[in-house]
Amino acid sequence: MSSHRAHTRSDYLFFLSYRTRWIDNDQYSHVNNSVYYHLFDSVVNTFLIQRCGLTPDSAQIGLVVSSHCQFFSPLSFPQVLDLGLRVVKLGSSSVTYEVAVFEEGKDAPAAVGGYTHVFVERGSRKSSPMTDLLREGLSSLLSTNESLESKL
Amino acid sequence: MSSHRAHTRSDYLFFLSYRTRWIDNDQYSHVNNSVYYHLFDSVVNTFLIQRCGLTPDSAQIGLVVSSHCQFFSPLSFPQVLDLGLRVVKLGSSSVTYEVAVFEEGKDAPAAVGGYTHVFVERGSRKSSPMTDLLREGLSSLLSTNESLESKL
Amino acid sequence: MSSHRAHTRSDYLFFLSYRTRWIDNDQYSHVNNSVYYHLFDSVVNTFLIQRCGLTPDSAQIGLVVSSHCQFFSPLSFPQVLDLGLRVVKLGSSSVTYEVAVFEEGKDAPAAVGGYTHVFVERGSRKSSPMTDLLREGLSSLLSTNESLESKL
Amino acid sequence: MSSHRAHTRSDYLFFLSYRTRWIDNDQYSHVNNSVYYHLFDSVVNTFLIQRCGLTPDSAQIGLVVSSHCQFFSPLSFPQVLDLGLRVVKLGSSSVTYEVAVFEEGKDAPAAVGGYTHVFVERGSRKSSPMTDLLREGLSSLLSTNESLESKL
Repeated sequence: MSSHRAHTRSDYLFFLSYRTRWIDNDQYSHVNNSVYYHLFDSVVNTFLIQRCGLTPDSAQIGLVVSSHCQFFSPLSFPQVLDLGLRVVKLGSSSVTYEVAVFEEGKDAPAAVGGYTHVFVERGSRKSSPMTDLLREGLSSLLSTNESLESKL
Repeated sequence: MSSHRAHTRSDYLFFLSYRTRWIDNDQYSHVNNSVYYHLFDSVVNTFLIQRCGLTPDSAQIGLVVSSHCQFFSPLSFPQVLDLGLRVVKLGSSSVTYEVAVFEEGKDAPAAVGGYTHVFVERGSRKSSPMTDLLREGLSSLLSTNESLESKL
Repeated sequence: MSSHRAHTRSDYLFFLSYRTRWIDNDQYSHVNNSVYYHLFDSVVNTFLIQRCGLTPDSAQIGLVVSSHCQFFSPLSFPQVLDLGLRVVKLGSSSVTYEVAVFEEGKDAPAAVGGYTHVFVERGSRKSSPMTDLLREGLSSLLSTNESLESKL
Repeated sequence: MSSHRAHTRSDYLFFLSYRTRWIDNDQYSHVNNSVYYHLFDSVVNTFLIQRCGLTPDSAQIGLVVSSHCQFFSPLSFPQVLDLGLRVVKLGSSSVTYEVAVFEEGKDAPAAVGGYTHVFVERGSRKSSPMTDLLREGLSSLLSTNESLESKL
């Protein structure tokens, strides 16, 4: 397995900062593993809303079919975290995102993970080819080393 | 009951901005009522850490004995929210905070709430007079109309 | 203020048990204050779905306009909690619930709180008199000492 | 990749039921992907507490170094979910859990995932061989087809 740890901020194309919350820390006084997935969802959906035309009543929505994360170093409230996003695989109706979580001022990620969205019709929940608007927006996040990354 | 809605940003003395998260929205597509309490906890504890010397192994910790919130207008992911904090009652071992939640660019709060912390010894969980450092920090957040507010 | 602490299981009319989760504990190793509101929402909406005809596309939905909670004794993962629900005030378009949180095997609540729902049209979010089905269901939860409780 | 979907309840050795919460549903009215990780944490830590001697001040704690989940069919509040747990790899200081999420009354899982815990000294956070009590407890969850599963 390649080391996601080797990634740096320059590998990602869309960034948002999130202030951690008191409840993010579990009783071991570090950000709980599940919280990273809350952040993945947030940066992905913000991108879909701001750059790909996703609205509360869009005809298509993205459903998560698989997700994963590797944790390299602990984070803790009240840190502010930078989330970096890129697309590592883009199909006709699905997309795989990679998200890295950076402590402020650090270039090596504290965690790297991501998930795969399958786009479906909102009502039937049947998969369908993504709209041009979606595809165009997501293409802009495609890392240049897509062919490599898509094999992960 | 006085109208918390009449409050404005100038009533608060410590501010932090929080980016909402995808999961904050419940199935009615607005920020769920319980999420506001996550934010109250976050701004209060950040203040305690940054201005009052609270550390992960402080001898004293604050336990919430009561909390409340009034909701005036809906908020929704992916908005960024400004949280304003002040102290409305300061006792020897307890403090009552008021927190207002503002949409970016708005002066009237979308919600106003707060809670009362009783400071206790970490081990025994018995209440004890707050340290000078705590009291000094919290005093700086005391609104000038304390006597009025403390009757709420 | 009357002491909610004096309440017992027999004061409540609808019960559900909830298993606490690891993330419910904050770094003080007790269930965080905000989690109680997650549970209030859960027991109230379960009642609305099971006994009052609420569906994912009901014409009317309930919006929380104010909420509150008093905390008497700490709870902690992995406890199982019993939530007791009753209605303390029933208007034409609004209802005020009271929820008590019990540790298994205990008759005095660890916390008592609640919130007020205003029923609105799903689309316009304008308040409207609750349907007969809603009113009938909620009436069945009305505590016999309504007149007293509604003054709290 | 083998199909986790092919797994059934009989593949798991420790079960707990969790009542879903209102906030578990995101604005697509299904249980959000991140919530499954909250449940994984809950069933794993309950097992560690009840069967492996984990206490709030145990000398060793488990840190999550990687996690993953595949989602096969949607779940929704107010369903009650059965979580099945097994161990698929047991090292000297680390353990990999697999957790399946079942809808009540169904034998095929709605989701299968898991994570790897590295046990560390609580203070230093340095990895250390797990205690006999931990190893003994975790061994009892080892699926009989460990050699196969550990290659996943």
